[in-house]
Amino acid sequence: MKFRRSERLIDMTNYLLDHPRQLVPLTFFADRYSSAKSSISEDLAIVKETFEQRGIGTLQTVPGAAGGVKFFVNVGNEEARPFVEELCELIAKPDRLLPGGYLYLTDILGDPSIVQKAGRIIATAYANAKIDVVMTVATKGIPLAYAVASQLNTPVVIVRRDSKVTEGPTVSINYVSGSAKRIQTMVLAKRSLAQGSRVLIVDDFMKAGGTVMGMISLLEEFNATVEGIAVLVEAEETEERLVDDYISLVQLMDVDVKEKTIRVQEGNYFKRRAEE
Amino acid sequence: MKFRRSERLIDMTNYLLDHPRQLVPLTFFADRYSSAKSSISEDLAIVKETFEQRGIGTLQTVPGAAGGVKFFVNVGNEEARPFVEELCELIAKPDRLLPGGYLYLTDILGDPSIVQKAGRIIATAYANAKIDVVMTVATKGIPLAYAVASQLNTPVVIVRRDSKVTEGPTVSINYVSGSAKRIQTMVLAKRSLAQGSRVLIVDDFMKAGGTVMGMISLLEEFNATVEGIAVLVEAEETEERLVDDYISLVQLMDVDVKEKTIRVQEGNYFKRRAEE
Repeated sequence: MKFRRSERLIDMTNYLLDHPRQLVPLTFFADRYSSAKSSISEDLAIVKETFEQRGIGTLQTVPGAAGGVKFFVNVGNEEARPFVEELCELIAKPDRLLPGGYLYLTDILGDPSIVQKAGRIIATAYANAKIDVVMTVATKGIPLAYAVASQLNTPVVIVRRDSKVTEGPTVSINYVSGSAKRIQTMVLAKRSLAQGSRVLIVDDFMKAGGTVMGMISLLEEFNATVEGIAVLVEAEETEERLVDDYISLVQLMDVDVKEKTIRVQEGNYFKRRAEE
Repeated sequence: MKFRRSERLIDMTNYLLDHPRQLVPLTFFADRYSSAKSSISEDLAIVKETFEQRGIGTLQTVPGAAGGVKFFVNVGNEEARPFVEELCELIAKPDRLLPGGYLYLTDILGDPSIVQKAGRIIATAYANAKIDVVMTVATKGIPLAYAVASQLNTPVVIVRRDSKVTEGPTVSINYVSGSAKRIQTMVLAKRSLAQGSRVLIVDDFMKAGGTVMGMISLLEEFNATVEGIAVLVEAEETEERLVDDYISLVQLMDVDVKEKTIRVQEGNYFKRRAEE
């Protein structure tokens, strides 16, 4: 059965979106649509052009006998910026304030479309980096970590506060939480991370960075390297920030419990991207 | 700027996949591509045909002035079955056996591509159901719950074992875990679920069903109704199963700790779908 170009383009789009950072040989598509490789190449040129124009991503062509095409997510700033602005507005609503200056973000983190879009934007910053694994800590960072990892085509590894019988042998470390200055424990299943992995740390919220520092110490136990740190929201600036090299989509500026106001601005994402 | 049909089809495919169960007015696409509504209708007919042929999903056309088009995920059995078979093989590997007969599933649950595909298959069973919210319990069910919810265009609500200061006021219940017969606690933030919500419960694993029963009692406190229960893996049959009406992708048949063998078969998903 032969496929028309229009059908090929629709199915290819779906297939490529679903297989980011995976090399797809031209012969795969040629067989799938019983079409000549030359037609497939033309199709892919159209897909590439449209993906780039619409801020969806890009296609990289790998030449040669073992070659093919790879899709990389690439959300342009013209799409990322309005999204981050909306996120800032959402977060600045005063009814998010909880006793102690904590912020209710559960509804935002519970919205898969927000999480996925944030994940795509963060993944854009690491689309070309060598990342083997995305790591997060249970539980709030989990959805964002999956959203990033699905675009980077890597597994997710989840650090826990306590060990579970269903995880087998674990490695655990103690660390000092940056803001509350309490000693806490972090646990990772031994089987879940290969020695020497290149890791992207993803979390929903960063205050002083104690949790991230804890994850970094844990990674040392696995001889793993930190290739990046990305958070959805970072707290207002603090002298005691333990981590410098990270990206954030949103930054809290000023949380005033008494006046019930929250000021918010975009995080360092766009600045960091511009420096690259 | 005018768009060629090929570009429109690629961008439409991406847009629709990204907005499941959302009514997209024809005028939205007409404006987006500076094209006549008649051309958009033709485009959508091609997209619909290809989506259905390739087992991606379907488009529903809503007629009238307030009309438009809605995408529903619909993974056909010819695609779902080989995936479930592969999953069975993966799970049947004897090195998953942990002391006490527990099964190591962390690597499977940590693979976003597996989780997303499982999520699409489960969402297929509920594509036309009225679901307001997907609910799961921390932590292992979270990724699958998001994968399902993103296809159903609903938020995710996460039940916890303990209350967190960042969630505000909570409702908690006690329940008896079905297999271990221990009294446990479940907590849900008051703000996270509206009264009267229609809920789909999603979890990674179900043994006797105690956890699911706990979630059902918790939902009663919110006057919410259970519209469905879906799990990735159900344990071998037990006389004491507390829950009947659920779907599962995989069923454990026989876990023999001494012989180090695990037998696995497909869950009731395909049977349930055939009965509909």
